[in-house]
Amino acid sequence: VIVALLTDFGTADHYVGAMKGVILSVCTDAMLVDITHDIPPQDVLTGALELAAAYRYFPAGTIFLAVVDPGVGSSRRAIVAEGGGYRFVGPDNGLLSIALRQTSAAQVVELRERRFARPHISRTFEGRDRFAPAAGWLALGTNLRAFGPRIDDAVTLDVPVATSTGDEIDGEIVRIDRFGNLISNIDSNTLELLPGDAIVHIGGHRVGAISVTYADVEHGDVCAVVGSTGHLEVAVNGGNAADVLNISRGASVRVSRAHG
Amino acid sequence: VIVALLTDFGTADHYVGAMKGVILSVCTDAMLVDITHDIPPQDVLTGALELAAAYRYFPAGTIFLAVVDPGVGSSRRAIVAEGGGYRFVGPDNGLLSIALRQTSAAQVVELRERRFARPHISRTFEGRDRFAPAAGWLALGTNLRAFGPRIDDAVTLDVPVATSTGDEIDGEIVRIDRFGNLISNIDSNTLELLPGDAIVHIGGHRVGAISVTYADVEHGDVCAVVGSTGHLEVAVNGGNAADVLNISRGASVRVSRAHG
Amino acid sequence: VIVALLTDFGTADHYVGAMKGVILSVCTDAMLVDITHDIPPQDVLTGALELAAAYRYFPAGTIFLAVVDPGVGSSRRAIVAEGGGYRFVGPDNGLLSIALRQTSAAQVVELRERRFARPHISRTFEGRDRFAPAAGWLALGTNLRAFGPRIDDAVTLDVPVATSTGDEIDGEIVRIDRFGNLISNIDSNTLELLPGDAIVHIGGHRVGAISVTYADVEHGDVCAVVGSTGHLEVAVNGGNAADVLNISRGASVRVSRAHG
Repeated sequence: VIVALLTDFGTADHYVGAMKGVILSVCTDAMLVDITHDIPPQDVLTGALELAAAYRYFPAGTIFLAVVDPGVGSSRRAIVAEGGGYRFVGPDNGLLSIALRQTSAAQVVELRERRFARPHISRTFEGRDRFAPAAGWLALGTNLRAFGPRIDDAVTLDVPVATSTGDEIDGEIVRIDRFGNLISNIDSNTLELLPGDAIVHIGGHRVGAISVTYADVEHGDVCAVVGSTGHLEVAVNGGNAADVLNISRGASVRVSRAHG
Repeated sequence: VIVALLTDFGTADHYVGAMKGVILSVCTDAMLVDITHDIPPQDVLTGALELAAAYRYFPAGTIFLAVVDPGVGSSRRAIVAEGGGYRFVGPDNGLLSIALRQTSAAQVVELRERRFARPHISRTFEGRDRFAPAAGWLALGTNLRAFGPRIDDAVTLDVPVATSTGDEIDGEIVRIDRFGNLISNIDSNTLELLPGDAIVHIGGHRVGAISVTYADVEHGDVCAVVGSTGHLEVAVNGGNAADVLNISRGASVRVSRAHG
Repeated sequence: VIVALLTDFGTADHYVGAMKGVILSVCTDAMLVDITHDIPPQDVLTGALELAAAYRYFPAGTIFLAVVDPGVGSSRRAIVAEGGGYRFVGPDNGLLSIALRQTSAAQVVELRERRFARPHISRTFEGRDRFAPAAGWLALGTNLRAFGPRIDDAVTLDVPVATSTGDEIDGEIVRIDRFGNLISNIDSNTLELLPGDAIVHIGGHRVGAISVTYADVEHGDVCAVVGSTGHLEVAVNGGNAADVLNISRGASVRVSRAHG
């Protein structure tokens, strides 16, 4: 059974290693796969977006252990969920909510059963003492309902949504990746609502029409493409758009009709 | 068999990959788990502390391959050890010593048998040519004593120790984690020696009483808690204490009685 | 079957996780090993050098999935190759060429068969949609020739080569590692061509004779050694030569006879 991990723990400390040891102590033959541990500290929205972007590429049956948990040790709930053939464990702070919204027939239970946790639960590291052992028990085949009572009020996130009029789509940059690509919240379905050719602006900068891939523009030129998650992004061919355009997360993106 | 790795090799170069290839060349079905490869270069004490913090969470039988080795290629010895159901391989420079001190009935042998190394041993990368294959042979079930003669003078480290009088505990910051949490060498056993309520100072800053978890103080406020390794730490709820307080490793921490 | 990954995707985004999910969706029991994902963005030469430095330490049968791909989505070809008992998948931009040159009887085919890709191929992330599934199919035992037609004009790289006269060897720094070690393109075979004792210069700095290991010089002193890949490197014992000497990639290295 695959257990895929996503956290904001970084890789410099022993935290991820300890969590992995705990999972393997419960389920010896779990196959551990890192999605990322470099979610910005306590940035639940980025964690939720990255998890939602990755989970669908794993085989059915995969267990996702996700921990970005500013409320560790507080009374915020912990949850176990399943949907779309996948299972998820994490804090009830919205981290799992974008992925769960995309899966069919998602069910959520509160992780409350004490026997699926370690004997002593640190109030500053529930990832190790509550979430990791629960993932191990899921990998052993434990039924969702064994972990606690079903809930239907799991926390959701306010995800910035692109808005569309007949002539224009307004969105924003929600993610900047390692290459400096600026990924917006405007997806390809929304783009299809716009009749005719589209022109992209970001911040005050006119990018122009939407290209098929980076290499469609000259080396060093700015382009707009529909990226690998199906969202409009602004990039520089062979370069770093975030640096070149000096754009940060939250910057506005506008798509308008070419002939308007 | 699990082989857990801890090094200061970073993850940008091919070094860790080469070590993993070597382990798998000896023992094809070893399950490799990274603890961390981002120990600060040649910082044996940090490596020893992180290893000691992580090993106990792995299942019995796990092999720990630890390499932080400023003396690579010199005459410093290499060692193989077992204790508490775990086995360890690494340079004899104290890197394993804190973990070994905590395990019961630890035994140490010098890694001297040439047949458990690669045919050519680089004088600048013994991690690949001596330690990794030894870990592979351990994973295959090779007996500790096969690797070389038993020794009882393995190198230990001068770990800064907290001191306690009746009214006060004096310690220091020994580790700063990814979140900027400032982890001291004052453990919970030592804290229990102090009668009455405790007040924590760090550097010249008064932190106040010890909280149960970060969320017990307001967002952005400084708090002291007993963290996940059982040591007193100073943190900022939702923030980075190292940045906020401008504190570095080695800063003094004092715990005194509230009514003194 | 081991699938070893080398990319420039970094570890902060979900990209590597998505690729791993795709591999495991095709071949459930592939054993995934990271070489590195921190090749500098779009730096094909560094990727090729690191792959060539690492592959030989893996057991025969290992599949290498390498993606550093500035031409993603363009008409550059994709290739699958085998040589020396290993198999390789990646873009046809020279990334695999240094490793393939070193393996015996390498064969290369163009990755063209559509059925070994995902149903929809993103034009900005072929690593996920073309290369990862091909690696999965290789892991399942698919024959090289099934992926497409054999080619003998795979792209190669202009790798800077050291030149040797009777009295002097001229090379350059091609790689700087995590420790600040400056690794040149002068290999041990070339060094053996120089009669007598050798003196190393880097930039305008005289390093002196070649040592056996870092610890042969005083702590903090500069030394030259033949490093773990068999290339001459300049290092500082216990320090960072790149910082101390203020040297960047491309700096000239000269080895001359001690008595000239």
